[in-house]
Amino acid sequence: MTELAQIGVTGLAVMGRNLARNFARHGYRVAVHNRSHAKTESLLADHGSDGTFIGSESMADFVASLERPRKVVIMVKAGGPTDAVIAELVGLLEEGDIVIDAGNAHFPDTIRRERELKEHGLHFVGSGVSGGEEGALNGPSIMPGGSPESYTTLGPILEDISAKVDGVPCCTYIGPDGAGHFVKMVHNGIEYADMQLIAEAYDLLRQGLGASAGEIGEIFKTWNDGDLESFLIEITADVLAHKDAETGQPFVDIVLDQAEQKGTGRWTVQNALDLGVPITGIAEATFARALSGSVPQRTAARAGLQAHTAEWKVADREAFIDDVRQALYASKVVAYSQGFDQIAAASSEYDWNIDRGAMARIWRGGCIIRARFLNRITEAYERDADLPLLLADPYFADVVGNALAAWRRVVAGAAQNGVPTPAFSSSLAYYDGIRAERLPASLIQAQRDFFGAHTYRRVDKEGTFHTEWSADRTESDA
Amino acid sequence: MTELAQIGVTGLAVMGRNLARNFARHGYRVAVHNRSHAKTESLLADHGSDGTFIGSESMADFVASLERPRKVVIMVKAGGPTDAVIAELVGLLEEGDIVIDAGNAHFPDTIRRERELKEHGLHFVGSGVSGGEEGALNGPSIMPGGSPESYTTLGPILEDISAKVDGVPCCTYIGPDGAGHFVKMVHNGIEYADMQLIAEAYDLLRQGLGASAGEIGEIFKTWNDGDLESFLIEITADVLAHKDAETGQPFVDIVLDQAEQKGTGRWTVQNALDLGVPITGIAEATFARALSGSVPQRTAARAGLQAHTAEWKVADREAFIDDVRQALYASKVVAYSQGFDQIAAASSEYDWNIDRGAMARIWRGGCIIRARFLNRITEAYERDADLPLLLADPYFADVVGNALAAWRRVVAGAAQNGVPTPAFSSSLAYYDGIRAERLPASLIQAQRDFFGAHTYRRVDKEGTFHTEWSADRTESDA
Repeated sequence: MTELAQIGVTGLAVMGRNLARNFARHGYRVAVHNRSHAKTESLLADHGSDGTFIGSESMADFVASLERPRKVVIMVKAGGPTDAVIAELVGLLEEGDIVIDAGNAHFPDTIRRERELKEHGLHFVGSGVSGGEEGALNGPSIMPGGSPESYTTLGPILEDISAKVDGVPCCTYIGPDGAGHFVKMVHNGIEYADMQLIAEAYDLLRQGLGASAGEIGEIFKTWNDGDLESFLIEITADVLAHKDAETGQPFVDIVLDQAEQKGTGRWTVQNALDLGVPITGIAEATFARALSGSVPQRTAARAGLQAHTAEWKVADREAFIDDVRQALYASKVVAYSQGFDQIAAASSEYDWNIDRGAMARIWRGGCIIRARFLNRITEAYERDADLPLLLADPYFADVVGNALAAWRRVVAGAAQNGVPTPAFSSSLAYYDGIRAERLPASLIQAQRDFFGAHTYRRVDKEGTFHTEWSADRTESDA
Repeated sequence: MTELAQIGVTGLAVMGRNLARNFARHGYRVAVHNRSHAKTESLLADHGSDGTFIGSESMADFVASLERPRKVVIMVKAGGPTDAVIAELVGLLEEGDIVIDAGNAHFPDTIRRERELKEHGLHFVGSGVSGGEEGALNGPSIMPGGSPESYTTLGPILEDISAKVDGVPCCTYIGPDGAGHFVKMVHNGIEYADMQLIAEAYDLLRQGLGASAGEIGEIFKTWNDGDLESFLIEITADVLAHKDAETGQPFVDIVLDQAEQKGTGRWTVQNALDLGVPITGIAEATFARALSGSVPQRTAARAGLQAHTAEWKVADREAFIDDVRQALYASKVVAYSQGFDQIAAASSEYDWNIDRGAMARIWRGGCIIRARFLNRITEAYERDADLPLLLADPYFADVVGNALAAWRRVVAGAAQNGVPTPAFSSSLAYYDGIRAERLPASLIQAQRDFFGAHTYRRVDKEGTFHTEWSADRTESDA
């Protein structure tokens, strides 16, 4: 009799197949299943040598091929398909079994599913998995939520197949119910901001220096040796160096400039609005993609709107390049600080008790935003686990402070010269807003009291007040 | 026997009471009802002389006191309370009667309620009402949705009690089901942007000129004689001139600088994210309020972050004031253009067929954003009802073009001098983005294809493509 499998994967499209192979390569006996059995057969045929797979045609056989407590990874499309697979599994699993949704679920769905499965005595683990096909096969960053109890059994296996940085797994227990998918969502939101900031840096170098894509690729390559070292900077250098085979043009010049999106950036911003956390960098990045795809509006604007700027002549080429590098780094710190602020707010709102330093640690490898600088974030939260604002941690306050003059020059130069830098500008405005002694929000509160009797608080005493604006302007307690 | 009432109002808190009085003052016989009868009695006692009221203690008597088709205005809290009143009414009303929700419902709720009441043969009119207590009594801006049929009966009454500008009512039929509440929501979103822009202008004058609140109030007063003429500029001048009786300080200086919000700005941005419409001005304004209320973050930032700027010395005082005025106007045009873009997208998405020019027309009076400049918007849509981008209408392209040099100086100056101007900066970035020949979104698409095989389109031919980044970098049709 064959030994039972230690873990199962249902849904063998590229992500599921690669995860299954990753488990097998780490010595686990892997049960595999797919709605259409052909995919299971091709996995066994093409990659059987990776390790021990137990293929099943029916879900019942698949479940029966797993040792208890069963650990079933679902890797199908988010939404209805995930619910359908869960419904089928519920009838087959037994108390204490663990269902892992490794797809891109929206965290409120994960919260709902965890609650539903708990009623059946099952553990539901909504897990973010980042790193794409490549990561799934060779080591992703894994963000599992759910019960701490399920992590005791499941965690070691997930840590085993995750990416490692300095020998440390890029996987840790995130928190109850939706915490894992939430953190993955914010990871993606930060990714949007990071990519937009890189795109703006590229555009500034292009317009400020009149440089070619290839030249700018060289600049990014050197940046990747410093504080900016990251997967995204590295692939940007690669992309910019690449020439289109058909035309001989720089590849980036033949790509249509309309950015698409799949929804996690949008979800991140919508949630931040609910939580009241200003994540302006991610918001501007998300809207910048929407703007790029606003074709009729862009057509009308190109025909009707003037730039009223002369061609940008940067005087000192090297100084400008370094200014842009510093502005990019400072803006990036702001975007990450905002994202971590959102994680803190959600952790408190949903009672998740998320360790932010650990989030930065497990993002150091496997995922899209992996970067050297995440070590600095982990260190910041090691210094103060309850840090109210990452940006104000002494290390980051110092590096951003040092970059500030350059950052101001770049944002001012972009405004003067007609280069759109929504994420750079917005990040600087956030920096100047959050550190301000006084904000003109007092005027907004006064206006709201004037037209809507919405009341205001005072700087000099407790309480809530209203002024009779349309009468004698006396103030009363509200 | 008493004549039956022509319209009824249930929910007699200040907004409902004032609406009922407004109907009565226009000669309508008004049925009135409130859960606790004392409010009905006090309305009759205090304002019976306004006209003909028919008070009822029970909902059944209230409904019986109305002529058919009955027209019942609900003015209770949004959410559960509104649903409760609707449920009670449904049992009492008859086919063809009209239920008007004049509260601040979220438009998806209005869509649902309209569908539910249609099954009972009832018309449900979700109607935005703007103008606060004052407007409700003396003439609000009214945005009724629902069936065109219901507007035939109801419209003339609502137009009668609405504000008038040049004899034209600030009320028109908006569109089916949720259209009225949707348009009111965007109105409020635009209001957020407008208020934030005014607050930034104030802050710039304060910091750039070292001017007092009173001096800045004088500046706003003169602005109110020009293109910026509007209710919000007018009350800003009033607020800034006001001195706190207790301390003798300028009022704005004793108000706590933490802006609050009730949710419509958030809803507007969340919907724009769903629709993919970049409304960065409203988003920055909403987040600026959230930032102002982020107390632990602000405390940490004030302690830890440096400004690295000298005190701002504006050389030419009058030139600077005029620059700020022009930057404010240009940013305002962007915010409105974005809001109208969202209305167009929603109109198309939800099949509402909204006349954008008419929206600007009915916002000229009664509501918070009433302003001279709305006439220019109506004219723009009269020139081209399908205008793809308000900002690119010849009139606005020209005025914003003329303001552009000043706008660039102000945004650059704010960045250099550490004044947070998220909405000014973001509006300028939008302007430069939407008019750009090429955006660096091409680089974002390339990155997405690199790490996630998300594919891209090309500038030179149709189709969707993928490059084998980790292999020989050949391109294939995707």
